[in-house]
Amino acid sequence: MTDSSGKKRVIITNVFPCVEGGKFPAKVVLNEEVTLSADVFCDGHDEIAASAFIKHDSEQTWTELPMVFVINDHWDAVFKAQKMGFYEFRIQGWVDHYTTWKKGLKKKYEAGQDIAVELQIGVELLEQAAAENENHKAVLLAWADQLKQAESPEQGVAIALSGAIAATLYKCRHQELITEFPVTYKIEVERKKAAFSTWYELFPRSTAEEPGKHGTFKDVIKLLPRVARMGFDVLYFPPIHPIGEVNRKGKNNSLTAGPDDPGSPWAIGNRTGGHKAIHPQLGTMRDFKALIKEASKHHIEIAMDIAYQCAPDHPYVKEHPQWFKWRPDGTVQYAENPPKKYEDILPFNFETDDWANLWKELKSVIDFWVDAGIRVFRIDNPHTKAFRFWQWMIGEVRKKTPEVIFLAEAFTRPRIMERLGKAGFNQSYTYFTWRNTKKEIEEYMTELTKTEMRYYYRPNFWPNTPDILPPALINGGENAHIIRLILAATLSSNYGLYGPVYEFGINEPHGTKEEYVDNEKYEIKHWNWAQYTRIGEIITRVNKIRKENTALHSTWNIDFAETTNDQIICYVKTDAATGNSLIIVVNLDVFNMQSAQVKIPMPKLNIGYDEPYVVKDLLSGSKYTWGELNFVELNPYLMPAHIFKVEKL
Amino acid sequence: MTDSSGKKRVIITNVFPCVEGGKFPAKVVLNEEVTLSADVFCDGHDEIAASAFIKHDSEQTWTELPMVFVINDHWDAVFKAQKMGFYEFRIQGWVDHYTTWKKGLKKKYEAGQDIAVELQIGVELLEQAAAENENHKAVLLAWADQLKQAESPEQGVAIALSGAIAATLYKCRHQELITEFPVTYKIEVERKKAAFSTWYELFPRSTAEEPGKHGTFKDVIKLLPRVARMGFDVLYFPPIHPIGEVNRKGKNNSLTAGPDDPGSPWAIGNRTGGHKAIHPQLGTMRDFKALIKEASKHHIEIAMDIAYQCAPDHPYVKEHPQWFKWRPDGTVQYAENPPKKYEDILPFNFETDDWANLWKELKSVIDFWVDAGIRVFRIDNPHTKAFRFWQWMIGEVRKKTPEVIFLAEAFTRPRIMERLGKAGFNQSYTYFTWRNTKKEIEEYMTELTKTEMRYYYRPNFWPNTPDILPPALINGGENAHIIRLILAATLSSNYGLYGPVYEFGINEPHGTKEEYVDNEKYEIKHWNWAQYTRIGEIITRVNKIRKENTALHSTWNIDFAETTNDQIICYVKTDAATGNSLIIVVNLDVFNMQSAQVKIPMPKLNIGYDEPYVVKDLLSGSKYTWGELNFVELNPYLMPAHIFKVEKL
Repeated sequence: MTDSSGKKRVIITNVFPCVEGGKFPAKVVLNEEVTLSADVFCDGHDEIAASAFIKHDSEQTWTELPMVFVINDHWDAVFKAQKMGFYEFRIQGWVDHYTTWKKGLKKKYEAGQDIAVELQIGVELLEQAAAENENHKAVLLAWADQLKQAESPEQGVAIALSGAIAATLYKCRHQELITEFPVTYKIEVERKKAAFSTWYELFPRSTAEEPGKHGTFKDVIKLLPRVARMGFDVLYFPPIHPIGEVNRKGKNNSLTAGPDDPGSPWAIGNRTGGHKAIHPQLGTMRDFKALIKEASKHHIEIAMDIAYQCAPDHPYVKEHPQWFKWRPDGTVQYAENPPKKYEDILPFNFETDDWANLWKELKSVIDFWVDAGIRVFRIDNPHTKAFRFWQWMIGEVRKKTPEVIFLAEAFTRPRIMERLGKAGFNQSYTYFTWRNTKKEIEEYMTELTKTEMRYYYRPNFWPNTPDILPPALINGGENAHIIRLILAATLSSNYGLYGPVYEFGINEPHGTKEEYVDNEKYEIKHWNWAQYTRIGEIITRVNKIRKENTALHSTWNIDFAETTNDQIICYVKTDAATGNSLIIVVNLDVFNMQSAQVKIPMPKLNIGYDEPYVVKDLLSGSKYTWGELNFVELNPYLMPAHIFKVEKL
Repeated sequence: MTDSSGKKRVIITNVFPCVEGGKFPAKVVLNEEVTLSADVFCDGHDEIAASAFIKHDSEQTWTELPMVFVINDHWDAVFKAQKMGFYEFRIQGWVDHYTTWKKGLKKKYEAGQDIAVELQIGVELLEQAAAENENHKAVLLAWADQLKQAESPEQGVAIALSGAIAATLYKCRHQELITEFPVTYKIEVERKKAAFSTWYELFPRSTAEEPGKHGTFKDVIKLLPRVARMGFDVLYFPPIHPIGEVNRKGKNNSLTAGPDDPGSPWAIGNRTGGHKAIHPQLGTMRDFKALIKEASKHHIEIAMDIAYQCAPDHPYVKEHPQWFKWRPDGTVQYAENPPKKYEDILPFNFETDDWANLWKELKSVIDFWVDAGIRVFRIDNPHTKAFRFWQWMIGEVRKKTPEVIFLAEAFTRPRIMERLGKAGFNQSYTYFTWRNTKKEIEEYMTELTKTEMRYYYRPNFWPNTPDILPPALINGGENAHIIRLILAATLSSNYGLYGPVYEFGINEPHGTKEEYVDNEKYEIKHWNWAQYTRIGEIITRVNKIRKENTALHSTWNIDFAETTNDQIICYVKTDAATGNSLIIVVNLDVFNMQSAQVKIPMPKLNIGYDEPYVVKDLLSGSKYTWGELNFVELNPYLMPAHIFKVEKL
């Protein structure tokens, strides 16, 4: 109790952004405006001040951002993340006796009280600051003299309130009174695509022009203009590696494959190679690199699917037997969910004594494809591999190549999904696939965007995948496909479709399962890419709207509007930086026309409650004059949604 | 990457109870059952296990509490806090290969699969455990042999599922696979009165039998049987120190005191002494100690009011001028809220260079009264003194005398109120005084009992204080006094009344202020203690009900019931340990009869939805047979509430 610690009266708490008390960095993207905030307060009635200090890992010095009071002891400062990689920030608060004095002086003067003693106190404050701040000493003493020689209370008050004094004393804060929050938090800045991307998934082997033939990367190149025209910027393939021949699955996941069955691309590896090889029928590495290059001309990135598991004939099994679990009968332990057996898939044993080499080899798979030009990876079932591995691997890869994006394909329990985000995955699949009612969607979006999740879990909404044909699409047909597409594409700035079946409206389930029958996972398909569909038309329009409206480039900027009908959902998306604002209204009823009164949260649009404004439907082109309360009516057979752009009058 | 850290697959997070990430201890009381919980999970499909370890500061070894799975990866363990002072706890989780194997074996066996290899795996598990656990080696190897020699699958499965093997392998967990949560959290155990207390506030100077005379401690002794009969167990006095004579306030807070005005007891200190002295007209230290002793015979504790501030004639001003702020004109800075001045009160300057001695002296005030026999302190305006001082002072006092209870009298902003709780205050005044509607009460109770606040902020509900006559009491008269009393006494296990004016229904405000006119703070009153009032009668009944029903001894055990009328509030209070359950129904409408259907949350009562049960109104004596949905009707002029005790049929 001999230092000055007892004098530090300011308390700092609830610092944000913060993930698990600072254990993980908060995620933002390049040029995003990040609000740094904290509760800062002091006993008694003294004025206080607070600052955030921020520094990029590549910088030597901290930049001070003065914080402003918001409400209820909450303070914030905004900074624009202008460099990729890691920033750290810390928070400082202090008692500001000069401001306390200045405000009191003004009130006493205005109340007609004698302020002679108050002006002397001001002189003391300036002289004390002068004594403690050599580099401002002269000017502070000069002001003290001016204050002493003030010829009238008016003059004294005028000097006291001068901005120059305030600015200088802000710098000359009394060091002994500064409280520093003891933890430094980290922010990771990723490239914009981590937050805004539009995915199309197809099986390259189903792209041959001639029915019955195995498609190749060269066939995919021919489809690139079509994918680009529809507005997609990520083209994602299931695994492209050699497919296991031992215990290969046949059509519809049958246990025995016929001689012509191509097998599931997720059963990885055979005598021709493993995770660093290409399935020979798709083409060569040179073909693949040519595809990546050609895609980039269309502003499309190729996303690879990495499934860390092996077919029984994967070379790893012989080369690194210590990475697998061996059964007492001398066989390798296959995947199982007793009594079910998955004998075509061997998982890695993450508890192997040789775990460090296993980790290195698995990372080298990513390095290999990064070297080939890939920057986007969809990771299959990450929740069945050790969390610590992901945190290490993603960290190492991104340290060298920060543009790399990892999408976590985990459809599992909430804590697991969350942890994968914290471990570093840049995007994550979500429960959106099964969130259908207005209440479900509003609650889920609130959880994703208004809780701590907002800083570590970046959603990517998929209405379907090769594994999942949800009841909504089975039962709702074409209209449901359109509604679910519009929701995915406007609720979340990252979204994707398992494309061909979606745009062609294929929705026949495999018996009572929520899966596609005759699944492309186990057979080669042939699609008529030239056919026009209503779904495809709307996908194209919606993707164009997404591209042109920056309000759809973020997932966090959503606010729901009240509606008088539970079948009508309405939300506002706004981009403060550009002023771009959209109002989206969707009829969730797949079969019936629905109408509602919607109540727009006007402050979010920066428009007064009584101020009329124009909305232009970017889907239909129609224009309306709107206010706070508006009537809407939507026919799902015509167009189940409005995507209104807000135009001020 | 050369150790075994990569093998640790279990993740532990969201550990509770936890206050600000472990920065402050969580508060419980003696013999309280504390739930220790965490999210514990692992990648993949392996079974896991988790344990909490707990240790009192006075103990050398940790006690293991196996945790059980609750829901969604959440695990918990319950421990009973049987010692005062500090416990710490930590959490461990591990992959449990034995249980994974056992469950798989059972399923495979039941599905009729060949389990020969599975049984061999069991042998390996037992042999591995034997190799790692010298002290269980013999028995583990014996079991391994039994398993090897099993003569049929049935026999093998029977051996595998034996409880003895499970119990031993639970102890023999594989050390390399254990994840330990890196932070140890603290729990502070206080005496039961911290959580369950019933306060009566009176001014000792107003207790003389003869009108016009100054009351004494001896007069208070005569009132003790009455206070006890009404069911109060804390008798709290405003400050009992000598009252300042310089700038003394007169009646109704007027700036000039008449010669007979006694002054405000919160203007502390004069030529006869300060915070360690007794106002001579109240009696001597011997009288005070006699009062404490006599009160204890009635199971009443005397609570003192400590206001760390000085009248201008307090001895500290001359003895320790360095503890005050001095103005350039040579006067001490008085309290102010410009342009208002409070010239009868001098605050301490917590930024003094001599802060360490100031802290010691202020603590010595508490030590002095603890030595005199006081164990309960109400601290006046703690939010105008440094938070770090409180944390140090309360910690030091309770280290020596853990029974001491400090009540924080802060009616200020939420973050400030919260921080005082974290700093160590055992009880806190609340916003209850202004929470009147059903929505307000339900939201406030939810915040207090279902958030992190539950672990650091222990509410004490006061319908009134000498400083506060809220609008509800001004406008609602006798009925309002009864309703607010019942709410305070049944919502919160700690509650108190500024007694005489409350029981006598005095509610005349000072002009438009929410304060009593002719306030006892500035003058001596004379009360007719013998008069019967309806309010006093109900206070007595309610306090008896509180004492006899353990469901009212905790604030945390509340669940609200839905009602069909916003004027009718209904909540269930249950004590799991004793099975005591109450249903409280209150009509919030002060002037009109109201009725409603109430929907009881049956699982909270441990009664089935279709099971009838009896409720007995402890206020009126009436009995009813109830179910999940029930009709109630309450007339505020008769009795505005039911306090039902639940009796199973």
